[in-house]
Amino acid sequence: MRTFFDCIPCFVRQALDAARLVSDDEAVHEQVLREVLRAAAEMDLRQSPPAMGQRIQRMIRRLTGVNDPYRDIKDHFTRVALAMYPGLKAKVDASPAPLETAVRLAIAGNVIDFGVDGEMDEAKVRDGVAHALAAPLEADLDGFGSAVARAEEVLYLGDNAGELVFDRLLLERLPTEKVAVAVKGAPVINDATRADAEAAGLTGLVEVIDNGSDAPGTILGDCSEAFRRRFDRADLIVAKGQGNYETLSDVPREIFFILKAKCPVIAQDLGCEVNSLVARRSARAPVNGSPQAN
Amino acid sequence: MRTFFDCIPCFVRQALDAARLVSDDEAVHEQVLREVLRAAAEMDLRQSPPAMGQRIQRMIRRLTGVNDPYRDIKDHFTRVALAMYPGLKAKVDASPAPLETAVRLAIAGNVIDFGVDGEMDEAKVRDGVAHALAAPLEADLDGFGSAVARAEEVLYLGDNAGELVFDRLLLERLPTEKVAVAVKGAPVINDATRADAEAAGLTGLVEVIDNGSDAPGTILGDCSEAFRRRFDRADLIVAKGQGNYETLSDVPREIFFILKAKCPVIAQDLGCEVNSLVARRSARAPVNGSPQAN
Repeated sequence: MRTFFDCIPCFVRQALDAARLVSDDEAVHEQVLREVLRAAAEMDLRQSPPAMGQRIQRMIRRLTGVNDPYRDIKDHFTRVALAMYPGLKAKVDASPAPLETAVRLAIAGNVIDFGVDGEMDEAKVRDGVAHALAAPLEADLDGFGSAVARAEEVLYLGDNAGELVFDRLLLERLPTEKVAVAVKGAPVINDATRADAEAAGLTGLVEVIDNGSDAPGTILGDCSEAFRRRFDRADLIVAKGQGNYETLSDVPREIFFILKAKCPVIAQDLGCEVNSLVARRSARAPVNGSPQAN
Repeated sequence: MRTFFDCIPCFVRQALDAARLVSDDEAVHEQVLREVLRAAAEMDLRQSPPAMGQRIQRMIRRLTGVNDPYRDIKDHFTRVALAMYPGLKAKVDASPAPLETAVRLAIAGNVIDFGVDGEMDEAKVRDGVAHALAAPLEADLDGFGSAVARAEEVLYLGDNAGELVFDRLLLERLPTEKVAVAVKGAPVINDATRADAEAAGLTGLVEVIDNGSDAPGTILGDCSEAFRRRFDRADLIVAKGQGNYETLSDVPREIFFILKAKCPVIAQDLGCEVNSLVARRSARAPVNGSPQAN
């Protein structure tokens, strides 16, 4: 997805929110603001929004001298999610449609997104769960189930720390021996890195790899070659969250996008209402049907 | 009032809204966006927010080649307000507290502000009236009344087109022979100019002067010398709307500010909730009590 004009004021607001979250120093807030304004003025709008997110977060890390400013937030939300996990797992197990319930809960976890909401808290996570269990879900779950069954390798692109615990509920319904989960190669916002996958209990369940990048999404050209090989080789890509949708929606291969459409620009691009639960097979699947076409 | 960090993303959003309102050309929208980002990156934050509003609107007029892009909008809202005027005037006349009702209605008219809401419509004006007649009003109306009675010259700084018809209800309760209303010297957003004062029926009621400036507020240094003389000479200044508050709140003389606090930054500066009705004597009144101190 390209960057829309409406993303620009939102970048500036996000940068200010992020600067305030990681520093109390007004001089830092002002420097971040001025730098992001200059960067946005020259931005190539054909890039996806996470390209600017990556620049903003690098700027904030540089200006604050803190390499992982969201470390405490990430740890906190992993703990919050782990405390909810047993109850949610029981819900999936008791569900007449466990795959659907697991997909809904994976979407619920997608609210833990400090790129969108810098005032996220535990109550909002609980609201997200209630909403995700009740709201309409437009999803071809049979298609998803058979694509997983057919695949020799499934690559699940994770999104945020804490959210991974919710993903675990879905991963546990998949043939884990052929599933790998990818996390970010370095800290960016509250996106999950390897430490968060470990804390979420994923390393004992599936293979965990990292993508070598610090973009809040999957900018393939910015990922490591090792990751790109895995991406090309996988028969099925499951891409979690807005950042992965924004960076991969135009990639010409079949991808299952699972997310909550939290922003109006993404909702419009998807053709749905804001806050919709989305589990959708990429419209960009190649005509010959080969998942290796990329 | 200085420019707060939170004003910056709002400038960018306002510029995009305004560009879209006056042009369908995406190339113009993009040019406006990039120029406002560059300008905001270098902005002196000690300036009041309308200094940037002035720059943005000059930019839009230059890029679109349209000198008064809000002309139709201004005419429309004057007609809307004139159609409501007889009913509202009857309400003031029948009120047990006609001055208070007139002040409330003058505040109601302050919703017609395309700097804040680019999707303003007649229904929102009617909602604004209902709200202004019912919501709490913190106002020293006795103080206002006696200041008006004492004054030899009252200068009423108008705000937007259409809103002037609501101001007329208040002006009709004042000793009009000693009241002058000031409008903007040139078009900016939907701020009222002389043509709008005429259309609102003010020219038959009070003296109408212009301030010589195209800022969406009253930046004294940008106003004509003739206007500044009137400003200095008046015993009582009544300043209507957010733009006049933002530009005059730090001026060391007694001013009655009448506005609806539509934005969170202004509400915080005033120490009130968003959407509060405000009719407040300047906290900056000089200690010696002389209104000519500036």
